[in-house]
Amino acid sequence: MNIHRYAENPLITPADVVPHRADFEVIGAFNAGVTTYKDEVLMLLRVAERPISLDPNIVKAPVYNPDTNELELLEFRKNDDRYDFSDPRVIRNKYKSGTFEYLTSLSYIRIARSTDGHQFTVDELPFIYPSNIQEVFGIEDPRVTQIGDTYYIYYSVVSPVGIGESMVSTTDFITLKPHGMIFGPDNKDVLIFPELINGKYYALHRPTMKSIGEPNIWIAESDNLLYWGNHKHLLGLREGMWDSGRIGGGAVPFKTEKGWLELYHGATLDHRYCMGAVLLDLHDPTKVLARSNKPVMEPEADYEKNGFFGDVVFSCGAIVDGDIIKMYYGVADTSMACAELSLQEILDSLDYL
Amino acid sequence: MNIHRYAENPLITPADVVPHRADFEVIGAFNAGVTTYKDEVLMLLRVAERPISLDPNIVKAPVYNPDTNELELLEFRKNDDRYDFSDPRVIRNKYKSGTFEYLTSLSYIRIARSTDGHQFTVDELPFIYPSNIQEVFGIEDPRVTQIGDTYYIYYSVVSPVGIGESMVSTTDFITLKPHGMIFGPDNKDVLIFPELINGKYYALHRPTMKSIGEPNIWIAESDNLLYWGNHKHLLGLREGMWDSGRIGGGAVPFKTEKGWLELYHGATLDHRYCMGAVLLDLHDPTKVLARSNKPVMEPEADYEKNGFFGDVVFSCGAIVDGDIIKMYYGVADTSMACAELSLQEILDSLDYL
Repeated sequence: MNIHRYAENPLITPADVVPHRADFEVIGAFNAGVTTYKDEVLMLLRVAERPISLDPNIVKAPVYNPDTNELELLEFRKNDDRYDFSDPRVIRNKYKSGTFEYLTSLSYIRIARSTDGHQFTVDELPFIYPSNIQEVFGIEDPRVTQIGDTYYIYYSVVSPVGIGESMVSTTDFITLKPHGMIFGPDNKDVLIFPELINGKYYALHRPTMKSIGEPNIWIAESDNLLYWGNHKHLLGLREGMWDSGRIGGGAVPFKTEKGWLELYHGATLDHRYCMGAVLLDLHDPTKVLARSNKPVMEPEADYEKNGFFGDVVFSCGAIVDGDIIKMYYGVADTSMACAELSLQEILDSLDYL
Repeated sequence: MNIHRYAENPLITPADVVPHRADFEVIGAFNAGVTTYKDEVLMLLRVAERPISLDPNIVKAPVYNPDTNELELLEFRKNDDRYDFSDPRVIRNKYKSGTFEYLTSLSYIRIARSTDGHQFTVDELPFIYPSNIQEVFGIEDPRVTQIGDTYYIYYSVVSPVGIGESMVSTTDFITLKPHGMIFGPDNKDVLIFPELINGKYYALHRPTMKSIGEPNIWIAESDNLLYWGNHKHLLGLREGMWDSGRIGGGAVPFKTEKGWLELYHGATLDHRYCMGAVLLDLHDPTKVLARSNKPVMEPEADYEKNGFFGDVVFSCGAIVDGDIIKMYYGVADTSMACAELSLQEILDSLDYL
């Protein structure tokens, strides 16, 4: 696979983002949804900010309070036996199930703009910020699907009652229309197809199961983008392969002559995140036609291997221009990068079922 | 609370149901959805059948094969170290996450009919039987919502890829129209309201979360009963109370002067299942008005306390006749019973918020 990583990579790092509060530091500007609007490429960055702690024995957890519309900062002493602080991203309660009880950073969405797709300027203010009870721990990993003149922006919302996927829409990237939680918990990595297929909208989603089942990709249908049903299991894990631990949708699926191409992420059980591709039937995207036996892209560059959470390439959006796929991707849960790949080369690399 | 348990209780036991195969035994006829059709009360029983094992060292797991349309029986030796057989309902793989890997019984739906609501006759053949890849471990805990002349029947579907809620509809209890999985995994205990409220359908559902969040009741809306969205958290657990461990919708919500009344189940962490009530706003059922601080009904009768899984009263349907609520309910994951309660007495017993 010929991969042309941009010379400017990483395109945006935390240092390029001014924190939205003086007592916070930006630790991530990554996993951006990507689209074009007027003559610009927009990256909808997931910005993660952490409250600055002057005492190394104290870990702070930012929590949005929907009643006061203020952020509250909870403080935990690192020697508090009830909690596990070993993963710097989360605070885990040892006596409760679940993978975390609090997050140590707050994520929200901020726009970075570019006229050439290489040089980006980050907006001064947040674009989408927690605003309700479903978002008290933040909003993460946005994707953007353009249908006509409307841009549908959807992202994981995180709160004590669960992680689901909520949506807003906009026609100008200024005014937002809220559509609520379109996929209930435990769910993330939603990707809405950009057009009706046989009279229906489709979306990929990635439920996380407790009772039985693995973190796999599912597909659902809709007639209005707001309400979803006819859920079907689409794509599973593959033991011993690059996508053996977990998978989830990545970029918004796009149409090719051979079918809908979805660039998805897969991770091994030791959390090495790669990007691969799956080809879905043009007229029935619940049918899998082909899939990458080897990843399309693996973490190799220094900025992909090292960071807040290393060995991660994680795309939430790509721009397709003829045979060139400009895949924007988060690196190491820290920064944004871009690489160009050949559509034909990806299609040729797939293993057809 | 005055509770009039029927003298005929339990109304249906496993002994009243002829197994659908000679090599199976019926171990449960419980958690029935309830409705009236023509002049009859119908219980849509969850029938659980277990393959008979002549060797006490062998546990069998029935698995429906959608390709051959046959049941396959897997055999496990009880001394197989990889598996945990301590819960007789399931086979757990010690090396995998999830609460089970196989079930030891297959559940499907069978109709019991009555002209007086007391004496029931069980149909000879299954009514709804596993028929696709989402149902290979069975279908469980049906509920029925009548809207006009159509009866919508929905139930948990269980397979290796997850537990979700699927729906069929019928107008004659003979022909079924499939509607696919209406709530994706990990989800159960769906309850569809019987009419449009301000132009929208509503449903309660009970997602099970792995990342964060507890087994709570959520509410979603729809415009066609098939596709659901605008998911909101509705009702949480209450520490130290009867509903401290898990909750889920029970009977189909019904309209009262004070609001929509939902009889829901709550369990403690040691799995004692009681029934209680929650009152929702008539014009906006996402608003909770009142709730039972004490259960409406607790397992007290012998048939409620002892059985395959004792100390369980679990209603999936009630018939309301003026002030009388005829609450049909599964007992001890084994049999069906019915009790009459006063609607007014329940409304008076609630703690208003």
